[in-house]
Amino acid sequence: MPHINLRNDLYGITSLLDFRKETAAPLCELTQVLLRGESTLTESERELIAAYVSSLNECVFCSTAHSSASCLLPGGETTGMKPMLADLSELHITPKMKCLLQLAAKVQQGGSFVQQTDIDLAKDQGATDLEIHDTVMIAALFSLYNRYVDGLATRRPDDPGFYEALGKRVTTRGYKMPDDGYHALNYKP
Amino acid sequence: MPHINLRNDLYGITSLLDFRKETAAPLCELTQVLLRGESTLTESERELIAAYVSSLNECVFCSTAHSSASCLLPGGETTGMKPMLADLSELHITPKMKCLLQLAAKVQQGGSFVQQTDIDLAKDQGATDLEIHDTVMIAALFSLYNRYVDGLATRRPDDPGFYEALGKRVTTRGYKMPDDGYHALNYKP
Repeated sequence: MPHINLRNDLYGITSLLDFRKETAAPLCELTQVLLRGESTLTESERELIAAYVSSLNECVFCSTAHSSASCLLPGGETTGMKPMLADLSELHITPKMKCLLQLAAKVQQGGSFVQQTDIDLAKDQGATDLEIHDTVMIAALFSLYNRYVDGLATRRPDDPGFYEALGKRVTTRGYKMPDDGYHALNYKP
Repeated sequence: MPHINLRNDLYGITSLLDFRKETAAPLCELTQVLLRGESTLTESERELIAAYVSSLNECVFCSTAHSSASCLLPGGETTGMKPMLADLSELHITPKMKCLLQLAAKVQQGGSFVQQTDIDLAKDQGATDLEIHDTVMIAALFSLYNRYVDGLATRRPDDPGFYEALGKRVTTRGYKMPDDGYHALNYKP
């Protein structure tokens, strides 16, 4: 039961975006730039950073949705991925991505947890300043999202089919606010 | 020494906003809506939520700047405020604001730390759904900012005069991106 009065046919973040459209518009725009804008990191890699941070924050809604998106996008894990990622060694990722995920995990704990060695390791694997910036900012953005979604106790379906449908929607439509408002995914709990 | 190559005449968040303007624009817009948009919480109260969360995250740059802004705005603490807020009982705030700050502190820890009792206490003091929403979202937004600013090790002046000048700038100009780019505050460390 959400802590505030949200539309009861919407779940997780979509119910919050619908509740306050003035904040939804810039939040969606920021997410679109970071996860879908031009980048030397693939869309699947950027979704993986989002999923990993959400997993560390134990935000089931976000980690399940973004794991699903990461797998569905080109280059994603083809055998699926545990929504709550415990062990990076199970993933088929580049050494650079492994360093960037370790950096994201430091940011998840707090900004001052990041050490020069975390940055040096990523740079040794070829990470650019922009890739390091975007990794830190995606990790920080999902530190926002996870708190927003769980702090207001938004509704969370258990059905894996819901997250697959949501993952598919964000891979095809991205994060821009729909002109005609938010829609339920024809999902009945 | 910042972890990435930032302009060396800018400090803290402004150096990051200057580094990546595509993400700066929606981030500034979101902050403007939450901290300066129409609200039944005063601008000083909303700056206090930002300062308090930043203090709990031990982000000196953000907590000092937003404490300064909160004091400078109408209704703000007139005797100044410790940038790293330790004790809410020293502040001249309403019972509703005390509940909202306690809610923000739960969000700072993580979304699932928020309990129904935190919400009930705030509602008993007259907090509306929108005030609760915005408190949670401001706390989540500064969980982003604090990680972004410290995770990339941005430069941080020690001089209190710098933060007073920055606080003054955001009380008069708000958070919209300046059309002519970011400016140093004529500050020399």
